[in-house]
Amino acid sequence: MSILVVGSVAFDDITSPSGGVKDILGGAATYFSLAASYFTKVRVVAVVGDDFGPDQEKIFHQHGIDIRGIEREKGKTFRWGGSYFDNLNEAKTDFTDLNVFEKFQPQIPKAYEDTEFLFLANIQPTLQADVRRKMTGVRLTGCDTMNYWINRTPKELAETLKLVNILLINDTEAKMIAGETNLPRAAQKVLAMGPQALVIKHGEYGATIFFREGAFGVGHHPFRAPTLPIDEVKDPTGAGDSFAGGFMGYLASQQELNREVLKRALFYGGVMGSFAVEEFGTKRLQSLNRDEIEARFQIFRELTHLE
Amino acid sequence: MSILVVGSVAFDDITSPSGGVKDILGGAATYFSLAASYFTKVRVVAVVGDDFGPDQEKIFHQHGIDIRGIEREKGKTFRWGGSYFDNLNEAKTDFTDLNVFEKFQPQIPKAYEDTEFLFLANIQPTLQADVRRKMTGVRLTGCDTMNYWINRTPKELAETLKLVNILLINDTEAKMIAGETNLPRAAQKVLAMGPQALVIKHGEYGATIFFREGAFGVGHHPFRAPTLPIDEVKDPTGAGDSFAGGFMGYLASQQELNREVLKRALFYGGVMGSFAVEEFGTKRLQSLNRDEIEARFQIFRELTHLE
Repeated sequence: MSILVVGSVAFDDITSPSGGVKDILGGAATYFSLAASYFTKVRVVAVVGDDFGPDQEKIFHQHGIDIRGIEREKGKTFRWGGSYFDNLNEAKTDFTDLNVFEKFQPQIPKAYEDTEFLFLANIQPTLQADVRRKMTGVRLTGCDTMNYWINRTPKELAETLKLVNILLINDTEAKMIAGETNLPRAAQKVLAMGPQALVIKHGEYGATIFFREGAFGVGHHPFRAPTLPIDEVKDPTGAGDSFAGGFMGYLASQQELNREVLKRALFYGGVMGSFAVEEFGTKRLQSLNRDEIEARFQIFRELTHLE
Repeated sequence: MSILVVGSVAFDDITSPSGGVKDILGGAATYFSLAASYFTKVRVVAVVGDDFGPDQEKIFHQHGIDIRGIEREKGKTFRWGGSYFDNLNEAKTDFTDLNVFEKFQPQIPKAYEDTEFLFLANIQPTLQADVRRKMTGVRLTGCDTMNYWINRTPKELAETLKLVNILLINDTEAKMIAGETNLPRAAQKVLAMGPQALVIKHGEYGATIFFREGAFGVGHHPFRAPTLPIDEVKDPTGAGDSFAGGFMGYLASQQELNREVLKRALFYGGVMGSFAVEEFGTKRLQSLNRDEIEARFQIFRELTHLE
């Protein structure tokens, strides 16, 4: 099956204790689509400027990613600069130039209307809701958001949450949305707002999926997947989007969507996130193969499973 | 088999968002020995004052814990007061009255000399080393420490680490000892200082055990156990000591000490820690039975294991 991601494509400048890079291809939709491309057919809706050319297109095309939905506007592509210091969990933003992304109005190409899976990367919640409403045939919708929208557009975000099946956010975001410091209680409050499942990402400690009673199976027990302890995290940028790409991409590759499939998807999310941080930008995500992914899945299993 | 714990017995005043208690029995050796008592015979070496009487003795005796090694001194028992606010991971210390604990010189009763397992709870590293050297017949020694000793007595701590098999600390402590912000690299540095295995506790995210190459089996792959997402953490005091009690207590109940046994021990550590926080002080640890412990072990397994 196929998955459509709607979100940002960007050029990034990144520095970390491991070095630095300039003008490399980034953005949530880029990380997501590369990670998902190892599991399923991916389509992208985004906006770029005149500076996006054949070199960037090639990266998508080499992974069979359909970029007919990437709109070209006059001007520059979204640019972001960030620095990481000893605490790799937090980026210091050096600059954010929204450029053509500022007026992004997602347009769904006719050829994309039959897409079965949808991922709404982190954009303004009303735009997310509009896209979701247009895609009348989707089987499952995943969604991301961030503190900026949680604080500034809580009502619009609440409307979007009614329309999505799975929300993927981090601990802080879950607690902010719920206004609740206890994580399991925060999860229950967020689930009551609409989604059937909530994936909370814990950075280097993995992720937990919480289910609404009866959603995707019986009961409401959560499930936790690890991440890999990595000796050198070169660049954490895009780890969350790569996680989402592995998670949603695996789901889109499956016939049935039950608890066991969602649990395995959580492992694949962690696997793709763990690859992403090994090199700057999308470099590692560009060079993978399915054997390497399966081998790391096995390492994740051995890391957590008793005999 | 039996285990000896050397550490503090205290009276605590605790407040948290769930309420407050005064003058309740606490201290690392207390939490540890109650948690371990569900798995094996426990012996305690500690010091208390005149205010420690039959009510406190009864709590130990009801769990078959041998307290002949608890020395009685003139004066008051160690007293600690702490408050937890929204972030339950951190206690604000309201007061610390060391009292008779200030001059604690652990004495090992003759009857304890044949103890097979030893746990050195958080006390001055030179005292830990002295106890370890006296206990010539022990099969395995576990050890805890804290930032205070890491900063003030690094040389003494380094000497102690040469004498112990397993060190149990948290993320911050591991990074401090190693002078290294990356956790897997910090773990390798700590292991190079002496212990064959290192348990790093991640609070609400569980714990990871790192092995020295070849220790307790082949290879050096780490293993991660979860904690349970709990709706109401009433009192986090003693969670780490209860974790250590479950971990070491389970080890002491086993004939063979291999990787698989250590992995299961990590699960039992998490299980006992998760019970401890459900009530103030040691209340929940006093009322458990082995069936409840096994049922929670199963929940931990379901939380992390794919089919």
